[in-house]
Amino acid sequence: MLLRKKVLNILRNAREASWVIASVSTKNKNRALVAMAQALLKNSRYLLSQNARDVSAAKKRNLSRALIDRLTLTDKRVKEMAESLRKVAGLKDPVGEIIRQWRRPNKLLIKKVRVPIGVVGIIYESRPNVTSDCAGLCLKSGNACVLRGGSEAINSNLAIHKVITQGIDRFGIPSSAISMVNVTDRSAVKVLLTSPEFVDLVIPRGGEGLIRKVTEISTIPVIKHYKGVCHLYVDKYADLKKATEIAFNAKVQRPAICNAIETLLVHKDIASRFLPEVSRVLKDAGVELRGCPKTRKILKSIKKATEKDWYAEYLDLILAVKVVNSVDEAIGFINKYGSNHSDAIITKNRYIADMFLRRVDSSCVYLNASTRFTDGYQFGLGAEIGISTDKIHARGPMALEELCSYKYIILGSGQIRT
Amino acid sequence: MLLRKKVLNILRNAREASWVIASVSTKNKNRALVAMAQALLKNSRYLLSQNARDVSAAKKRNLSRALIDRLTLTDKRVKEMAESLRKVAGLKDPVGEIIRQWRRPNKLLIKKVRVPIGVVGIIYESRPNVTSDCAGLCLKSGNACVLRGGSEAINSNLAIHKVITQGIDRFGIPSSAISMVNVTDRSAVKVLLTSPEFVDLVIPRGGEGLIRKVTEISTIPVIKHYKGVCHLYVDKYADLKKATEIAFNAKVQRPAICNAIETLLVHKDIASRFLPEVSRVLKDAGVELRGCPKTRKILKSIKKATEKDWYAEYLDLILAVKVVNSVDEAIGFINKYGSNHSDAIITKNRYIADMFLRRVDSSCVYLNASTRFTDGYQFGLGAEIGISTDKIHARGPMALEELCSYKYIILGSGQIRT
Repeated sequence: MLLRKKVLNILRNAREASWVIASVSTKNKNRALVAMAQALLKNSRYLLSQNARDVSAAKKRNLSRALIDRLTLTDKRVKEMAESLRKVAGLKDPVGEIIRQWRRPNKLLIKKVRVPIGVVGIIYESRPNVTSDCAGLCLKSGNACVLRGGSEAINSNLAIHKVITQGIDRFGIPSSAISMVNVTDRSAVKVLLTSPEFVDLVIPRGGEGLIRKVTEISTIPVIKHYKGVCHLYVDKYADLKKATEIAFNAKVQRPAICNAIETLLVHKDIASRFLPEVSRVLKDAGVELRGCPKTRKILKSIKKATEKDWYAEYLDLILAVKVVNSVDEAIGFINKYGSNHSDAIITKNRYIADMFLRRVDSSCVYLNASTRFTDGYQFGLGAEIGISTDKIHARGPMALEELCSYKYIILGSGQIRT
Repeated sequence: MLLRKKVLNILRNAREASWVIASVSTKNKNRALVAMAQALLKNSRYLLSQNARDVSAAKKRNLSRALIDRLTLTDKRVKEMAESLRKVAGLKDPVGEIIRQWRRPNKLLIKKVRVPIGVVGIIYESRPNVTSDCAGLCLKSGNACVLRGGSEAINSNLAIHKVITQGIDRFGIPSSAISMVNVTDRSAVKVLLTSPEFVDLVIPRGGEGLIRKVTEISTIPVIKHYKGVCHLYVDKYADLKKATEIAFNAKVQRPAICNAIETLLVHKDIASRFLPEVSRVLKDAGVELRGCPKTRKILKSIKKATEKDWYAEYLDLILAVKVVNSVDEAIGFINKYGSNHSDAIITKNRYIADMFLRRVDSSCVYLNASTRFTDGYQFGLGAEIGISTDKIHARGPMALEELCSYKYIILGSGQIRT
């Protein structure tokens, strides 16, 4: 009960701060972001020492190497965090933009204006840089945020939080506009997720398990990204040289990222020409292929793909391969087994391309390009708080605009309804 | 278990239909809507006879008169339902619109394109017209819908559903694009609300109790509108004649609608001039006033307003009245007690107006006009599936555009990420 009260108090303060930060000027928000960047650099030593406590505890608990790597701060990482905040200061302020306006026959002027969402809750795992990255994006978009990182990073997160919030009230921003749930008890998350009166949106960042749990518990809207099971479909009218380059890029360049492909679909008419060539290049890079029966007639030595493989997000140098009879089959397959993230077709046929682009139900659908471009920076949005595979509110890379809502401002001169 | 299977089957069919209806041409969607309108008129007798079964059962169960009124179909109401569908046929198709497009330095062309959401679940109470209204709006916006009305209207809803879906496959639309959960068992709703793999969005339409329940259970995004606790703030720089007219209109014209005001806030400097005049006009219309202590010094005979009154959505000829010291106090009061629906200020002072319009955290904020204009038709959107007091995805009146999501279509010529 005491815990609940404590968390509710944090949330209430964030809500109150959200009303203030919503109308802080662009200039002051930018000055605050630059000051936060400077504070990170200046306190780098303190941050690393606090982080060392988390890292040593993680080692004692025998947590995985991958987790410890994500958890560890270095001078370079602190510099990157600061650089990130500076970049956000340079981005266009989305708040106050008039999205559209029109006048009604009765002379009412209706303006649809971009406004902050209010309070954004961020639930994340072990990366401490998420603390400053998300705080910066929320601040620039006029939102208060409530941060809740993994318990294994608690000392790092508290330190970063302390450093970036100190003195931001100089710029008219209450420090509770960047709030942190500094209670490692798990029930604190539940209080956050069931307080729609204080929190408007929840963005979970982490593995599928975390995201499913958050979605299940939350009575607040959640924007999420379960996984990236991305496909490349090589059509019978494909430029096979480009197809090979793109398959290689989309699988090999950074296989652990969500926009890397997990499944290659190949039209039957070009399978016997394309598969040997692409498999040679992929195998040279250490990629393990798993194929459907038709694929294995061409690539005899590869493993069999099971039903489970079609759903798999390997995030590793493994690629499932299937031969299909038509673009229709490819589209159906992607909509069934995919994760609505990023899928590409390689073809020179405009009609087939059009069909694929229209009917594949994913946030990003590519023609003759690598799926690796699904990213806020690559899209030119200047930032990214996540990639949404949802369809409500935001889809694909989410940046400052997607951290905003809108409101209607209606200007009258005494109009009444008759 | 059998029930669960049955409902899941309905949902799965709706999901499959959503892939088809998403790319039906505007022409065919409009032809289907007109055919649905004609079918309603042609089968009016059948609809009324099925409705009579529900009405008589409701009477036997001693349900309230208001509910029975909402439940009852008449020739006129059937005509209105048909007219509604015809109007939707006349609206602009939102699907396929290019919201924005830009080219990246690497020559990738990124198009942000409006697309249907997919499957929309509508949970509603006793009004059978919701069945055809929502089916029409979902169809026009390229969405499949799953309808689930109140059990007291089951025969009416089944009849309407049967009539409007018959033969729509002539226009390339699978009849399961308009699906109905024809099981009155309450656990059917739970299956719907926890099947995010088949349903993308849930819109509950009904009382606050229904909406809270839906939000609690659902693991699917919900867009909702709990209540309309709307305010009118009469500033010290108000044109008091206009203020009286607008107060009267916003309270009296249709008090049972969510955009009617429930609370009047009056600046202290004009309270003794304004309150006697406005109370005279309101009392003549049968409005009961409930006031704060300062109000009751001026209007001596009125009832005392309690804390509960400030939160109340009367939907009736009752108005809470409070004297405030400043626009700041008015804004704080509205953000605390209001429901983020529609709030208005009456003032001639531009600076004060601006402050109010920016800082009141509601979907629609008015200057010198009645809150009664918060409505899809009044806004010129041509339709309305509801009014959202949420901030995610859609805010204020929701029409066809708000029933859409978007996707990114990225056109390349072999681009890979380096």
